[in-house]
Amino acid sequence: MEMQIWRIDVARQSLKRDPIPEGWIHLGGRSLTARILLDEVNPSCDPVGPSNKLILAPGLLTGLVLSSCDRLSAGGKSPLTGGIKESNAGGVTGAILAGLGVKALILEGFPKQPDPWAKPWVIVLSKGEAHFEPAAGLAGIGTYETAHRLRKTYGDRTAIILIGPAGEQKLRGAGIHNLDPEGRPSRIHARGGLGALMGSKGIKAIVIDRSEEHKPAFVDPDRYRRAQKQYLQALLTHPQTSIYRDYSTPGILGTCNAFGALPTRNFSTGTFEDADLLSGEYFRQTVLGRGGDGGVSHHCQAGCAIRCSNVFPGPDGKEIVSALEYETLGLMGSNLGIGSLDSIARLNWHANDLGLDTIELGAALGIAAEAGYMQFGNEASAQKLIDEIRLNTPLGRIIGNGAHITGTGLGVRRIPAAKRQAFSAYDPRAIKGSGVTYATSPQGADHTAGHTIRAKIDHLDPRGQAVLSRELQIKMAGCDVLGTCIFANFGFGSVPGTIAELLNARYGWDVGEDIQQMLGKQTLGMEREFNRRAGFTSVHDRLPEWVSSEILPSTGSVFDVPKTDLDGLFDW
Amino acid sequence: MEMQIWRIDVARQSLKRDPIPEGWIHLGGRSLTARILLDEVNPSCDPVGPSNKLILAPGLLTGLVLSSCDRLSAGGKSPLTGGIKESNAGGVTGAILAGLGVKALILEGFPKQPDPWAKPWVIVLSKGEAHFEPAAGLAGIGTYETAHRLRKTYGDRTAIILIGPAGEQKLRGAGIHNLDPEGRPSRIHARGGLGALMGSKGIKAIVIDRSEEHKPAFVDPDRYRRAQKQYLQALLTHPQTSIYRDYSTPGILGTCNAFGALPTRNFSTGTFEDADLLSGEYFRQTVLGRGGDGGVSHHCQAGCAIRCSNVFPGPDGKEIVSALEYETLGLMGSNLGIGSLDSIARLNWHANDLGLDTIELGAALGIAAEAGYMQFGNEASAQKLIDEIRLNTPLGRIIGNGAHITGTGLGVRRIPAAKRQAFSAYDPRAIKGSGVTYATSPQGADHTAGHTIRAKIDHLDPRGQAVLSRELQIKMAGCDVLGTCIFANFGFGSVPGTIAELLNARYGWDVGEDIQQMLGKQTLGMEREFNRRAGFTSVHDRLPEWVSSEILPSTGSVFDVPKTDLDGLFDW
Repeated sequence: MEMQIWRIDVARQSLKRDPIPEGWIHLGGRSLTARILLDEVNPSCDPVGPSNKLILAPGLLTGLVLSSCDRLSAGGKSPLTGGIKESNAGGVTGAILAGLGVKALILEGFPKQPDPWAKPWVIVLSKGEAHFEPAAGLAGIGTYETAHRLRKTYGDRTAIILIGPAGEQKLRGAGIHNLDPEGRPSRIHARGGLGALMGSKGIKAIVIDRSEEHKPAFVDPDRYRRAQKQYLQALLTHPQTSIYRDYSTPGILGTCNAFGALPTRNFSTGTFEDADLLSGEYFRQTVLGRGGDGGVSHHCQAGCAIRCSNVFPGPDGKEIVSALEYETLGLMGSNLGIGSLDSIARLNWHANDLGLDTIELGAALGIAAEAGYMQFGNEASAQKLIDEIRLNTPLGRIIGNGAHITGTGLGVRRIPAAKRQAFSAYDPRAIKGSGVTYATSPQGADHTAGHTIRAKIDHLDPRGQAVLSRELQIKMAGCDVLGTCIFANFGFGSVPGTIAELLNARYGWDVGEDIQQMLGKQTLGMEREFNRRAGFTSVHDRLPEWVSSEILPSTGSVFDVPKTDLDGLFDW
Repeated sequence: MEMQIWRIDVARQSLKRDPIPEGWIHLGGRSLTARILLDEVNPSCDPVGPSNKLILAPGLLTGLVLSSCDRLSAGGKSPLTGGIKESNAGGVTGAILAGLGVKALILEGFPKQPDPWAKPWVIVLSKGEAHFEPAAGLAGIGTYETAHRLRKTYGDRTAIILIGPAGEQKLRGAGIHNLDPEGRPSRIHARGGLGALMGSKGIKAIVIDRSEEHKPAFVDPDRYRRAQKQYLQALLTHPQTSIYRDYSTPGILGTCNAFGALPTRNFSTGTFEDADLLSGEYFRQTVLGRGGDGGVSHHCQAGCAIRCSNVFPGPDGKEIVSALEYETLGLMGSNLGIGSLDSIARLNWHANDLGLDTIELGAALGIAAEAGYMQFGNEASAQKLIDEIRLNTPLGRIIGNGAHITGTGLGVRRIPAAKRQAFSAYDPRAIKGSGVTYATSPQGADHTAGHTIRAKIDHLDPRGQAVLSRELQIKMAGCDVLGTCIFANFGFGSVPGTIAELLNARYGWDVGEDIQQMLGKQTLGMEREFNRRAGFTSVHDRLPEWVSSEILPSTGSVFDVPKTDLDGLFDW
């Protein structure tokens, strides 16, 4: 089966399937989205205007029966940052697209005037054709109900990519949702407002028929199987794998609190008095104690050996949300002064249903709380603001547009954002390496772009943080090209050379052990070039002024990594 | 009397008066604000944070008994654009500051925490001391009432610089107000959100005692008087002088409508069906017909020979607002579909009272109307949104923060702004030279930065517009250094060399006929350097995408001046 580029034109309502251009063959996931953006999208265009494109690209190792390697990249010019954006997600779509031979799916064009927003469309892709089905009935419907209805109509086995009301309203905190193996729309390309980009194309969902799906073909199947086995074994025996299986991502919360890095009440401090009630241990105890639908080792994609996902149940054992992740506990928990897993889980469900990034939303709510629009520590008061988003009120639109607009609009100076994208749940004054990543990543503030908390260093020492961030930014960009989960590194890190083996056996290439670094550097270079053309300079590779002047009470520190370190980061 | 630099530190609540540093001596007005910003303010700072400074500087010819030359520059890092900002105004303050020997008045530092906004201060400057008077009673009070109370307390003869509720709320559309000769707070440093900067310092008003005022000293009084007389005669006999005296700035409205350049219903077209009801002729007829307080040739500063200002009365002859200007008729009239001078005058009064730029507000309201939050053509509906600003509601905050935040927040793509500052009342697709100025001026979109409508050219031809814009940007920057009104050029243009004569006679300098151009180029160079350090690139010297793709129905044109022309504009 030849891999192809699929293009959907929303003006003509058509699908075209083309051979892969020469220059795109060795690219995948994040690097392919960057290349296509550089080749086809004007970097200074309006991100919710006619010139932007939404690109979905499976990683190079996606769909190849590898644990924790089925991630799908979504890319476009970011409605949130105004720069390049790649946001990848687990779920089942990546592997299905790869199985259909999709190297990249490009959504382009612009819906016809006038009033294109009144009637969203569902695109059904089947056997080389795009059927545009009017979906007025789905306008404003949450992601859970939308996924439910679409699965009922088109069957349980179809892949579905969808947005919630936030994306339809073109709110810049909106993400794009995929289904998990049980059909929940819970695997989210959350960051950077790509949901608003999909919404600007007038598309509520893309439903993908799997009848042409094929098993992956390997140039050297035996060699592939050997490497596959070696990787799996390394992953299964890595100590972190079982920690994530047992405690899910909340396992990190205690560490963050101990480091004084847990965002608390709009980043006004880094330790939370109720951190124990949000910790991995308490989380596990609660989930196991309640039983019912709950579970701590849930898989977001088929065959995952780590199973870091979870299903969080209420006291009655009924599922509240899946998955309840650390970033959400940090941004919508401690950052809002809320120390109840149940409260956070309920707010999380609403964020998911609206189709909003919980990091961006949590940061925006923290700012709104500081401005007096909600009460810290009060779930009902946070819920009221989330309801405003659902009702599309002016205040709801402010908050749904993310931290930067919320701070600017409501007049709050402590805006936790870099390149207009909200910080993840690690205060950059306490984990300075992640601060470097927030400042310099072409993606804007994002822990997944190069997360330093696991390094055995003094996280308060400004020295060496840029070198560490660089190393991890390159590594993570490599992961995002391959489609491998951040945690897959537990396995790949233990058996160097496996990634090269897998690629060579799959594609008949001849790449070496340094392939992940090479892919990472290539990707970051393209992304920085796009941003340069979009008007970004070294001034944009900075954290906001308050991060360097306002002392974090929990650590007594400010962010003080020298500018020269930041500016030198990409000189390799 | 030696000229001095006055510094007010709002943290220490102190005034310091220092000699002028060597490098600042030959600077004034706009160029001095730029130099001080380059020397003292971090270009990447938070514009409403502790590092920004508000600088007031009279022009080099301000306070020297010259008609139409008493303008005062206000400068700072713009809360609206994030770049450099200079906004100058008429009124009496410029000449008074010059008479007190103030080369520049710098407001710096940051109010003490916590809750600095609860209690604004009034600063009274008298005989070398700054008295900080708590002014809780003025919090949230409009500019008219504030000016009235301050004049009652401190006397009619004091100079007063003040902000309205919008500035206190740090809304990015807020301006800084001065008094006109009759004490109205109607001469406004309107553009770029400098009112928010003053508000961020916790200052409601600065009251300046005139008891140390001196008459200007001239190095060569006879030479000065000769040049002064020559200029005045040229100004008085220029045909445009009497047109502006008879019709005020609304005189241009008919021309703009005929060019198809009159912003109408959020810049969706460039001709307005009720343009006749807003024309200069109709305006004059109305004002003269109603009599009472009204008048069409009002002076904004003492001794002005042009008197382009006006007092607009209601049917009962009582003043509604002074002055009702063309830009307000365009942005808050036709741009909102409102074809009634009375309606616009009433809305104008509220904008002034809140302390908002009518251009930015009108553009924001046009966007809000397009988003469905008001009805085009309905004064009450516009007034309701303005009331939201006064009530500091979320919707009010969105609109008060200007066109860019309003468009982004409410999800409207046709945002008439460049560098995040709203277009003036000339559609750049119809007056392409002004479009070049909007795109490339370091100030953001602003007709006063280089206005091409009077040039005898085809305004729809993209060729030559950049050259024309360059010439006028240089000339206007020169005016802004000198403190001369745009209309003073009617006089200076007719007798080349007068400006040099005046400067040489006043200061004992030896400058030549090209001094205005030299000052202009020097200023633009500094401003572009500040913006470069603030992260601006050629990408920021562009108009938004829709201006080049959406055809203006009234002319059938889009903005199509080549990028190479824009990029080459400052290569001189």
